[in-house]
Order: sequence, then structure tokens, then C-alpha cells
Amino acid sequence: MVTMSDKRVYLYDSTLRDGAQTQGVDFGPADKVAITRALDALGIDYVEGGWPGANPTDDAFFAAPPETKFTHLTAFGMTRRASHGVDNDPGLNQLLSAKVRHVCMVGKTWDFHVDVALGIAHAENIAMIGDSVAYGAAKVDEILFDAEHFFDGYKANPEFALACIVKAYESGARWVVLCDTNGGTLPHEISAIVGEVAQKIPGAHLGIHAHNDTGNAIANSLAAVRAGVRQVQGTLNGLGERCGNANLISIIPTLVLKMGYRTGVTEQSMRRLTHVSRLLDERLNRAPDKRAPYVGESAFAHKGGLHVSAVEKDPRSYEHIDPELVGNHRQIVVSDQAGRSNILARFREIGIEVDPKDGKLAELIDTVKGNEFDGYAYDGAEASFEILARRILGSVPDYFHCTSFRVIDERRWNARGELITLSEATVKVAIGKRKAMAVAEGNGPVNALDAALRKVLMPIYPDLEDLRLVDYKVRILTPGDATAAVTRVMIESSDSTGRSWGTVGVSANVIDASYDALRDSIIYKLFSNGVASGHA
Amino acid sequence: MVTMSDKRVYLYDSTLRDGAQTQGVDFGPADKVAITRALDALGIDYVEGGWPGANPTDDAFFAAPPETKFTHLTAFGMTRRASHGVDNDPGLNQLLSAKVRHVCMVGKTWDFHVDVALGIAHAENIAMIGDSVAYGAAKVDEILFDAEHFFDGYKANPEFALACIVKAYESGARWVVLCDTNGGTLPHEISAIVGEVAQKIPGAHLGIHAHNDTGNAIANSLAAVRAGVRQVQGTLNGLGERCGNANLISIIPTLVLKMGYRTGVTEQSMRRLTHVSRLLDERLNRAPDKRAPYVGESAFAHKGGLHVSAVEKDPRSYEHIDPELVGNHRQIVVSDQAGRSNILARFREIGIEVDPKDGKLAELIDTVKGNEFDGYAYDGAEASFEILARRILGSVPDYFHCTSFRVIDERRWNARGELITLSEATVKVAIGKRKAMAVAEGNGPVNALDAALRKVLMPIYPDLEDLRLVDYKVRILTPGDATAAVTRVMIESSDSTGRSWGTVGVSANVIDASYDALRDSIIYKLFSNGVASGHA
Repeated sequence: MVTMSDKRVYLYDSTLRDGAQTQGVDFGPADKVAITRALDALGIDYVEGGWPGANPTDDAFFAAPPETKFTHLTAFGMTRRASHGVDNDPGLNQLLSAKVRHVCMVGKTWDFHVDVALGIAHAENIAMIGDSVAYGAAKVDEILFDAEHFFDGYKANPEFALACIVKAYESGARWVVLCDTNGGTLPHEISAIVGEVAQKIPGAHLGIHAHNDTGNAIANSLAAVRAGVRQVQGTLNGLGERCGNANLISIIPTLVLKMGYRTGVTEQSMRRLTHVSRLLDERLNRAPDKRAPYVGESAFAHKGGLHVSAVEKDPRSYEHIDPELVGNHRQIVVSDQAGRSNILARFREIGIEVDPKDGKLAELIDTVKGNEFDGYAYDGAEASFEILARRILGSVPDYFHCTSFRVIDERRWNARGELITLSEATVKVAIGKRKAMAVAEGNGPVNALDAALRKVLMPIYPDLEDLRLVDYKVRILTPGDATAAVTRVMIESSDSTGRSWGTVGVSANVIDASYDALRDSIIYKLFSNGVASGHA
Repeated sequence: MVTMSDKRVYLYDSTLRDGAQTQGVDFGPADKVAITRALDALGIDYVEGGWPGANPTDDAFFAAPPETKFTHLTAFGMTRRASHGVDNDPGLNQLLSAKVRHVCMVGKTWDFHVDVALGIAHAENIAMIGDSVAYGAAKVDEILFDAEHFFDGYKANPEFALACIVKAYESGARWVVLCDTNGGTLPHEISAIVGEVAQKIPGAHLGIHAHNDTGNAIANSLAAVRAGVRQVQGTLNGLGERCGNANLISIIPTLVLKMGYRTGVTEQSMRRLTHVSRLLDERLNRAPDKRAPYVGESAFAHKGGLHVSAVEKDPRSYEHIDPELVGNHRQIVVSDQAGRSNILARFREIGIEVDPKDGKLAELIDTVKGNEFDGYAYDGAEASFEILARRILGSVPDYFHCTSFRVIDERRWNARGELITLSEATVKVAIGKRKAMAVAEGNGPVNALDAALRKVLMPIYPDLEDLRLVDYKVRILTPGDATAAVTRVMIESSDSTGRSWGTVGVSANVIDASYDALRDSIIYKLFSNGVASGHA
């Protein structure tokens, strides 16, 4: 058993390999490089870049791997196949010819798999592990042995499972990683089994690789560390097939901030954790999980009125850590449970000073509750909330009125059978006494409307020059009504200053909803730039 | 310490109270009744319906609570306030006048909160607990005492925290529930602290209430049960503020199938687990979490080619339980990692027999990979996949061609300043030599297109009469391009037989994408009804 005085835990990220098994996930070459750089900057000890030979993307990655300052780039593959010598096993030699100095080899340790999936003798399975590890250890700096199905294997046949990993260790594997491949093992079983394994192999050479099929991947990883292992394998945001792998984003702050272990992640780089988590979602074009531990948008959100007032007295009263430590921040939620305390706190957040006795405050609270009842959501659309608030408090200039717009979307097949699509929008606006109209095309109705709206306003409001839409989300609020459902559009905009803001629109008509969100975004941009009304 | 021979664990659901604290969640009266009935049928011992006095919805619920066969409906509220006697504390008496026989009272057990939030003497806090519990125990069948912040309180001042809960127990509380209110406590701490508490209060009278701020809410609940508690509080799908509460949907099968405990959930009702989880999401109008342990759509999905062939040999090789036990099912994912084995397995699933040597198979695999590269996703759109496959294999009749459609969407403000919106769609189709056109209005462009398409086809294909769209989802695949992004539309349809099917469309133009998904849905309906082509 390793002495607990050694508190350095090594982190191994498999987002680019095991994570790529997730339904709907595929990384392009640029994704792999960007994610590797982010993991390197965060301080992850090992990054598993993929499986040489599995697909062209992985081959390209290992043919010219990105430079890393801190991280050991690692290639993943299998031990030699039965009936092949290590020299003439194509897979093994392709793996060892990857341009990296660290290699992770997976082998079987569950007798059931050896019997059913491989159908070979137990002794041959052990020989495959020993030969491959020894062969690899002579060629690269470090071999890690991934003991597939180890915990199921240990429960079924501990002698065989142990014989497999002891062979890997004695053949020169720097690390023996115990995998709960099917994800069905529970924390108390992990503690017991790792404790027994640590009698044979020092914890300083043991790792844990957990899956989340019972929702215990994080707890299983922590239990293994407490039982002595010193490497934790996982993925960003718990990416991975089925229910996912152990989520390193959750495990890192718990190990460092709550359990007193050391990792390659410094106090400074820990503050990048929220950013790294969001970066992965951006790469995957999916909405971040608001409820993610530590880094979720809601992780430090306070909704109930009682909580809010207590948190304002002393954050410790309802927060388990300081959100800044992981680069996250506290959020006071505007909700239809909102009491005055929430709304006022939210105002302080966006820097509006309101006299709590101001009668307009009640009007605002009613308006917010009414809008949220209609399907508006202001968390994620702070700009729409601020515009709404400032308008009721009477401080937003009257920039423009849209008197009408029309969108035409046409699709036909020409004589040669080619699809011809046309999206065209016409917008008429009034700016004080001035009237203006513009027409524009786009590759879709909303895109055309966006183009026409800028076109008609830009001459009067040149500040709109650098306004950019960076995200556009559509959500159907009453799926029961199918295409007749109410639609909520959320738009994220930014400008050359690099700041970004969210706006929201709701309507039974996706184009109406989009227009409302576009309008709020434009007004927010003009207002925050201090632009005056363009009335003639 | 309770003897471990007592393996009955009581389940307490707080979806309707603590779950209602989730950002963006609000239950209407109908939701509360529907969810209560589902929990009753599942076999949940206690259902916390809400907080009498907190809002009109909760008041209405407790004024006329739904009948339950198995479940004890429970009302939640606070112990008496300082400086109030129990008789003249309005909140306490409103709580005890709810039309239920079981009441859960929350009180403080962390000296820091008593000092900072309440600012009262420790002795007064203990008296508030004792008076309120004794007063309530005389009026209803059961009092549960919710020990807020118990674990933080125990770490800070164990004597005081213990004194609070022992007072509740001695004053007649049937259950003392230990709450990790801030969610920062780790499993090994839960084990140790519960072990100590169980020296003072028998585990048969102890409960656990965990939050997921470190991703350990499930493990914390299991650790507490192993340390002796016999009530587990949680919510459906882990609903709850910040990172959520302990997820009962994950905890129940682990307790029953893996740890040998008994609950009110029978082997039969356990098969409703997936349904109950999806029901909540339907009520909340949100997409179910595909990666949810046990019940997620991906929980038993197999993507990698190796896995698929092994699973087909013996499911135990990559599945930790039989998905049927929780009402879920195995899924073979069609993906761009798909090898022949996946595609063939997927065919068997939908009952298509293909000769593996059929040259068309390669064409199909290439088409699927190409489409997925373009943004199509066939998991969730099995009908589009089947149509695609059958068309390539040459078995889909040529039902109709859309030669053109046009959608006009207009918005203007009339003389009285009222908003006038018009959405109108014109569709032209060719059915063999026949030509037909129709025009229809809708409350949005897609709705109008849907109406026009049915209108033009219904005379020729009366089978479309009972086709219904039940869900419509829009996803932006390249948010970086904002409104110019590629849009993926997923439609779920059903008919009078009650079956439902998913279709998908992808385009830079949301209306094009919607059209493609609508068309596939119509063709699937006609094909599966065995309708012949309507060519004249």
C-alpha cells in the first residue's frame, strides 16, 4: 500500500479517444489540436490523442502531433493479437510508431471475455500482455497498461485478473490502470478491490478508469485514490459512450480543494476550469450543462428569496466553495419565484441603482413574471432583461420602430432538377419622423431578416458596424403542439471589444421570436455604446 | 447502529418542492397531480407536494390533494420562528392545517447559520425545533425533521448539531433527515459522520438528503444507507437548484438490483422507471438526458464496432444490467464510426433483411456517413434512416414530388398599433402525371407549410388523416455562423395507433430542413401503412 503521505495524483485525459465514442461526437483535426492545447495549459499530465490506425483523423494527429509544454501526449491501442508475434503484429507496431513517447495498451483481464470474445487460453492472454508491454517498454518512454473490465474480472476470477496486471507491471508497465469498463461497480467495491490490488502493485503505479453507468464515476475515482491509486483517467465534461466517463472537470477541484491532493493543475490554471469545460462544448456545438458541478452556469445560482438574502450576508451560508477558484461566478436568478431581493440583487449585478421604494419596481417585477409565464427566460438573456428594466425605468432612448417586415422563402427545382432556394426579407422602420426601408437576401429567413435590419439601420447608426451574432438557439416550449408550438429564440451577440451579450424572443412564429431577439441585441449594443437616438 | 439485517429503505421524493427550485422549472397544478400519480404507481413512500403558503399553486395542491394508493403525501415547511409560540406562529399552523397526514419541518443545525442568518441563542434554536416537532406530532401521523446544513454543522460544532437532531427525535420526529444543503460533503465524510450519528439515533429513524455540487449526490446517498440510514430523499432526474438533488431514478435500481435493499418499488414497477423519467421531462418540455444512468437513451447504446459484435455474442460483455429491468432497451448506434456490423445490427432491429454481400450495402454506408458529416443524426430519427435504407434498397414507392413551395411571413402594425402577422405557404406537388397545389395559413412558417403539404396530399392519400406531429426540435449545428448556421430539425410524429417515429432534416434554411423532416414523416407513414403509390 502506498504511503498516504504521497499526495501527488496524475491526471490522464481520454476526451479525444474514449470521449470520441460518445453518440453524436466526432472531433476534427482542428478540434483535437485545440483541446490538446487547452489540456496542456490546464496542467493535465497525460492526453490520450486517439488510436493510431482507427481512422484518418487519428492517423493525421499522430503523424504530426501538436507541441505540448507540460502534457505527455499518449497513443492508445491494443496488445498483440493471439497467434501473432510482437514483431509481426501490424496494430501493435503501428501503435508504437506513433510520434509520441507514451503509449497506453489495453488488454483483457476478465476470464469471461477471454473465453467468450477471444476464445483463447488464459495463459496465452497473459503472454499477450507480457510480450506487448515488454516490447513497447523497450521502444518508448512509458507504457501504461489499461486493464479492461478489471473489476468485473476480479469479482469473477481474482487470481486470473491479478495475474494479468502483475504480468503487465513486471514486464515494465509504468502504470497499471484498473478499468471499470461496463461502469457497474460501486464505490465500496472499488475501495475493497483496489485495497487488495495495492498489496500486489504499489499505488504509485496504479490508475483508475471509471464509467458513469450508475452515476458513481466520480465517487469511484475518488474512492480509488483514497485506496491508494495515483492516476485518475477521465474526460472533459464526462464525455464518453453510454453514460460517459469520469468527469475530470468535477474531480480536479474536489481532489485539490477538498481532499488536499496535488495535481499538475495550479491554483492559477484551476481558474481556467470553467473556460476549458465551455470550450469543449463550443467545439461540439452543444449547449453547456448548466447543472455541471463547479463549472455549470447554475452551479452557484440562487433562486429562492431566503437563500439570496442569506448569500448576500455571507456566501458560505449557501456555497460550498468560492466560485472564483474554478473561474465560475455567483448568479442571482430572475425567476417567477423572484422576490424583490432577487430583482434588486440582479440590478446591483448589472449596475442599475433603484430605490426599493420606486413604484416602477413593482411594475418591473410584474412584467418579468408575466414574460416568464409566456416563455421568456432571462437567465442567459441578461441584455434583454437589462433593456426591459431600463426601459421601464425610463432610460432607454427611442432608437427605431419597425413598422413592418416581410420574409419570402421559396424553394423550387429548376429544369435541370437543381434545388433553387430564395430567402428575402423586406424591413420598414421609422426613426422619429424619418422613414427607411431595405431589402436583403440570406441563406435562410432569419439570416435575411438580420441582414435587412442591419442594412436599414447602419446609415443612421454606424456603431452597428461591428455587431456580430455568435450564437443562435431555438427551443420549442410546447412540443405537444408540434409545429404550432411556441418558440423561444436566444441570440448571443458580440462586438469588436470582445464582450458578448444574450437576448431572447418568444412567439408562436419562429421569425417573430427571432426578430424580437435581434431587435433587443441591436438596442443593447446602441445603448451600451452610449449612442443617442437618431431622430432627425 | 441499526442492524444491517433490516434491508428496507424508504424513498422520499422532493421533485415538487426542492425540484421546483431548479432554474427554469415551474410546475402547474396539473403537473403536480400527474407527477404525484406517477410516483405513487412507482412505489415511492413519501411525496413532498410543496410548501403550503409559499405560492398559490402549492396552496391549491394542499387544499385538495390527489388521492394516492401507496404514497404518503407530505407537506414541507419551517419550524416556529424565534419569539413566536407554536400556537401563534402563522407559518407553522398553515403547514399543519394542510390536508395531509405527514409533515416535514426544516430547522437549522449549523451554529454559523444560527448566529449569522437568525442571530438567536443556540438554546432558542433547539427550543424552536423541540416545540415545533412536539406540537406537530400531536396533530398529524408523522413528523419528519429536515436537519438543514447538518454535515457542515457537524463539522463546525458536532455537539450543537447533534443536540438539535436529538431534540427533534426525542420530541417525536419519526424521521430525522440529515441534509447536505450546500452539497459540498464527500462520501467518506458522509460515512464517518452518519456512523457517529447512528450511535445516538437508530438508523431506522435517519434519512439522507444530498445535493450534487461535487457530482457525489448519488454516492453520498448510498454511503449513508451503508452507514445505516433507512430513508433516502431525492428527486426525479436529479432536479433541484444549482447542480441538483440526489437522483432517485439512478439510486433506486442501484439499491435494489446491486445492493440487495428493498424499497416500495416492485420488480414490475421498476420497469416503469424509464417512463417516469421521460414523463418528467415531457412535463418540463425539455429533451431527456440521453446519458442518464439506467434510463438514458444512450445508457445501453453501442457505437464502436468491436463492442457491437461482442454485445451480439453476449450482452453481459458490455452491459452492467439487463436494460429491460428498468424499462430501457439496447440501442445499436448508426454513426460515422459505423462498421458493417453496426449497420447490419441496426437493420435487424428495424426488421430489414440484407445480404451482407449486397453491393447496395456499401452505397448505404457511404450515404449514411456522408449525411452524418453534413449534420444529419439518425439516432432519434429512425424513420428517416429506414426510409433512406429502404429507398437505396429499392423498396419505397414513389409517392410524390414537391416541385416548389413558397412561404410568406409578414408582420406589420395596423392603424390601431396592433401587431398583424401572416404566415402563408403554397405547395405544388407532382404525383406521377398528376399535378396539385394548395395554399394554407399557419401561426408560423413551418406550421403553414405543414398545413399546405397535408392539404395537397390528403385527397390522394387519406391515410394521412390521423398523422400528428408531437414534437418539433430545432438545433443549430454551427453556432459560430449565428443566423447563417446549419439547422437540424427533428420531428416526432405519431398516429391513431399510438406508435411514434422520428425524422430529421438538415439545411442552412430552417424551412428547408423542416420540409425534409415533414416529407420523411409523411413517406414513413404511407410506407408503414402499406399504401401504394397514388400515380394515376
